[in-house]
Amino acid sequence: MSTYADRLKALRDQLKATHLDGFVVPLTDEHMSEYVGSYAQRLAWLTGFQGSAGSAVVLPEDAAIFTDGRYTVQVRQQVSATEWSYQSVPDTSIAQWLKEHAPSGAKIGYDPWLHTADWVKTATEQLAAKGASLVAVGQNPIDKVWTDQPEPSPARLEPHSQNLAGRSSADKRQDIANWLRSEGADAAVIAALDSIAWVLNIRGRDVVHTPVALAFLIVNADATVDLFVDPRKIDADLRNVLGDDVRVHPRADFETALRGNFSGKTVAVDPERSVAAIFQALDEGGATILRRRDPAVLPKAVKNEAEIAGQKAAQARDGAAVARFLKWIEDEAPKGELDEMIAADKLEGFRHEHGDLRDLSFDTISAFGPNGALPHYKGTAETNLPFKPGTLYLVDSGGQYEDGTTDITRTVPIGEPTEEMRDRFTRVLQGHIAIATALFPKGTRGSQLDSFARRPLWDAGLDYAHGTGHGVGSFLAVHEGPQRISPVGSSQSGGDEPLQAGMILSNEPGYYKPGDFGIRIENLVLVVNRDVMGAEKEMLGFETLTFAPIDRRLIDASMLTADELAWLNCYHAHVLDKLGPQLKDADLDWLRDACAPIEAPAG
Amino acid sequence: MSTYADRLKALRDQLKATHLDGFVVPLTDEHMSEYVGSYAQRLAWLTGFQGSAGSAVVLPEDAAIFTDGRYTVQVRQQVSATEWSYQSVPDTSIAQWLKEHAPSGAKIGYDPWLHTADWVKTATEQLAAKGASLVAVGQNPIDKVWTDQPEPSPARLEPHSQNLAGRSSADKRQDIANWLRSEGADAAVIAALDSIAWVLNIRGRDVVHTPVALAFLIVNADATVDLFVDPRKIDADLRNVLGDDVRVHPRADFETALRGNFSGKTVAVDPERSVAAIFQALDEGGATILRRRDPAVLPKAVKNEAEIAGQKAAQARDGAAVARFLKWIEDEAPKGELDEMIAADKLEGFRHEHGDLRDLSFDTISAFGPNGALPHYKGTAETNLPFKPGTLYLVDSGGQYEDGTTDITRTVPIGEPTEEMRDRFTRVLQGHIAIATALFPKGTRGSQLDSFARRPLWDAGLDYAHGTGHGVGSFLAVHEGPQRISPVGSSQSGGDEPLQAGMILSNEPGYYKPGDFGIRIENLVLVVNRDVMGAEKEMLGFETLTFAPIDRRLIDASMLTADELAWLNCYHAHVLDKLGPQLKDADLDWLRDACAPIEAPAG
Repeated sequence: MSTYADRLKALRDQLKATHLDGFVVPLTDEHMSEYVGSYAQRLAWLTGFQGSAGSAVVLPEDAAIFTDGRYTVQVRQQVSATEWSYQSVPDTSIAQWLKEHAPSGAKIGYDPWLHTADWVKTATEQLAAKGASLVAVGQNPIDKVWTDQPEPSPARLEPHSQNLAGRSSADKRQDIANWLRSEGADAAVIAALDSIAWVLNIRGRDVVHTPVALAFLIVNADATVDLFVDPRKIDADLRNVLGDDVRVHPRADFETALRGNFSGKTVAVDPERSVAAIFQALDEGGATILRRRDPAVLPKAVKNEAEIAGQKAAQARDGAAVARFLKWIEDEAPKGELDEMIAADKLEGFRHEHGDLRDLSFDTISAFGPNGALPHYKGTAETNLPFKPGTLYLVDSGGQYEDGTTDITRTVPIGEPTEEMRDRFTRVLQGHIAIATALFPKGTRGSQLDSFARRPLWDAGLDYAHGTGHGVGSFLAVHEGPQRISPVGSSQSGGDEPLQAGMILSNEPGYYKPGDFGIRIENLVLVVNRDVMGAEKEMLGFETLTFAPIDRRLIDASMLTADELAWLNCYHAHVLDKLGPQLKDADLDWLRDACAPIEAPAG
Repeated sequence: MSTYADRLKALRDQLKATHLDGFVVPLTDEHMSEYVGSYAQRLAWLTGFQGSAGSAVVLPEDAAIFTDGRYTVQVRQQVSATEWSYQSVPDTSIAQWLKEHAPSGAKIGYDPWLHTADWVKTATEQLAAKGASLVAVGQNPIDKVWTDQPEPSPARLEPHSQNLAGRSSADKRQDIANWLRSEGADAAVIAALDSIAWVLNIRGRDVVHTPVALAFLIVNADATVDLFVDPRKIDADLRNVLGDDVRVHPRADFETALRGNFSGKTVAVDPERSVAAIFQALDEGGATILRRRDPAVLPKAVKNEAEIAGQKAAQARDGAAVARFLKWIEDEAPKGELDEMIAADKLEGFRHEHGDLRDLSFDTISAFGPNGALPHYKGTAETNLPFKPGTLYLVDSGGQYEDGTTDITRTVPIGEPTEEMRDRFTRVLQGHIAIATALFPKGTRGSQLDSFARRPLWDAGLDYAHGTGHGVGSFLAVHEGPQRISPVGSSQSGGDEPLQAGMILSNEPGYYKPGDFGIRIENLVLVVNRDVMGAEKEMLGFETLTFAPIDRRLIDASMLTADELAWLNCYHAHVLDKLGPQLKDADLDWLRDACAPIEAPAG
């Protein structure tokens, strides 16, 4: 089957053979993961779409692909208009489209291992209006026709040392068991892969850029756990580390366990992080389901001293690699030989030189000129731009080190920047500083801080269409909840999580001029307790964790307040302190210049 | 029945006679009103509690009163500890308390005309865990034992002129009818009293401080309406103004209409603003219920040109009265004869002198020294403090005029203020200015602006425990949704409403030092479109509507940025422009001094 048209036809034949009138194809896995293994790339296989978020619906005569505003252009380049209609979410939802296009009384299939129970409930209700029904399939029909579908990765699991984790797995399991008893529950299902890795102090290699393994976990109220995972992943050494309280079962036995082991028992399940099939199996097995957030999510987000120390060590290494890269760009760009892919490769090389880089923490966004104006740009050979003078280069990248996960964005001028670029960059910097210097009482949510980063842009009638910060894991997912710094929209139920000392977040305001250039300044920050003289509240603030020069050529110092300028000069002094000892010769000279204080403009 | 103990006993006897094991007593009316008529003051009658928010539960042996943090002290002063236990919400909910204290299998009564359907659902589920049930009563048992319960007010309804309303009622009804058709609905129930007044361009006198009348409204898809109201309220002239498309029925017929007229029809009902009995009657009458926000809420919040012009005229008058009052305080306080009640009466007198004051828009908060530290202080003869030098006086007040509703807070020193008072006042002023000068893109919610007002306080480890702004009606409720400026908590479903040009809100940051003093600076602001040179977004901002001097003696100008000082001086120049022509002699001289520009401190 060489063409996407063939694949679509094969799927339709398969649906017909199983008496289905349609099928819904999301881009996720059995763990509601953001990044998925190659075996779960069903949407890309079926349609050719390479973006990181989207879904599709196939009917006998119609087929539609649903993507958000980030992928308006890309989906039209990658997916054939002959077979597919392009739909934009959230304007058109799958359920709305089905309501209009599905034959009345249609049976639409879905894979219950790839949707949340809430999605199934809502979609079922909306289809009912048309007399249509949603039908759970036993096996995903794409898997039946995808003849060369990759196997799930058999990569070995590795222990994550307690020195780096800061707590034993037994201790974490005991905390969850105590919580289960306080909730009157017998067990908790944990399906999120980073939660499983955190609870057991293990790391895997099954998902690109996130060191996790495909598994399910059941934590019992006696603090023992049942781990469902491909047994080939666990060698004798790891088996020994895990201990007797971790019972290992084949991953394929998970559903049977849900159906067979919990009759009359109460089981906590996270509706956001567990698929419909889990709810269904527990329900049919006679369990009482307690809808609760995955009990690992919050403690995982609040880093302990060992994790914070690891993060700082990783940042120092990572910053040195980034600094050398920035100097290299400054040297090489005028020679006219650079392009986005060469630059991204070089940056990865510097990271390898400075530490034991286990993986990138995400695909590097190496974005020149107009490509920088796409906040989620993912470069390909087709989009790769050569560097030419007169615009900006934006590079958003990070590393996975055993002791920490990094994420940093810098924007630098290639050739002479315009006044507009300097004005915009300085406003983004002011927003960045407003977050970095914020003091706020305990209980404050990230949504309450987000606008501090936007105000300097708003003052000029500008904004950016993404959040200001996301949580970051410890040698785990580079996007981690529940903490974030972004507005709470009306579509979100509930607010966001109050910030707590120990949480790590990104601080990344930006500005994007479509077709022209993009700007983003991103450091990671740690939530810390702050002593404020005379304070009546317990106060929190941020400690910046990321150290690399912020390009002085793009800063219009006359726009900065004295406090903002002081922050910048102090930050650069810290950068020199942290990175200087790792650099030498020309690199060190460059760093000294890049970190030199800016004088307050006269006036 | 002279004692509260007698009243509680009478209620218990009544419950026993009707085979109930308990009863829930909220403080609201059949319209989920914030302020209620005297007939609906059941909580105060039963317990003696005079606060504006609370509820009670009565069991055969136990009785509990539930209030929030504002009333911790007051409830203990006003409600007898012999009969009642004090419970604090949100720490303890009624349902939680019932779960602990109600006999297992108990039947707990509630009045379905005084609770939302969602409250009934949640409480029912929580009681079920204990085998207890929630039972709707046919008649409120308090009404049976409250022998001298006042009748609902028979006050006449009056037309609200179209010149002031800016739109005809027919036009408003047509818009709602169009919306109903777009939703596929046959009718909408409108139970909120200010919505009814707005739709019909009528005003009443049934509720203290809010010019509304007790009524229910059904808007039909043909743009006719059915108004359920005491017929004595409508004279021939008003009948004539209302026209034939407004059918008037006795208020008592409302429930019958819900049960009888909508079988097989679809009716839109607002779950936040309509009580459970409305849902129950429609449901039992065979209607399909569409849960939608009251369709008057949003258009009522977005003021038209006539309403904005009326608000500005009302503000000019109101500001002149406040300015004369502030001068009077400055003159009289040193003489040692003032107290909170004398001051509040004098302020009301000035308001009457300057315009046709229909009512206060709420009970004046006239709060001296430590009473000012209670943000929701309601003075009584017992709490009334005489003015003595060395602290602050906070006065939060407003008027209902036919052309607009006002709400203003000023804080002034009595005697010499301390450095701490000046520091705190200046920070509150900086927060006020941060809101007044904010520019933000269309689509921004008030929750995104709230922290701008807090940052100068947060920087010193301080905060205030209330929102920054509430919506305000046009000769209607002084607290109006859906617009507001306050953080979105995790308990609220969905976010708040995006701000739109034409919305009116308060801007009222504060600071409270318990036992010592309180500070609040409140102006009303109008959301307006703003042209920003080079803007890439449609931008909004605030135009300040309230004009009265902000006390210069409390401002530490050395803390202000140049921009903040420029705002203050510009504001005071406007105050002089608007109010000067209405004042004369010594009042005008005082105003000139109070509005004189502050020079930037040297340095």
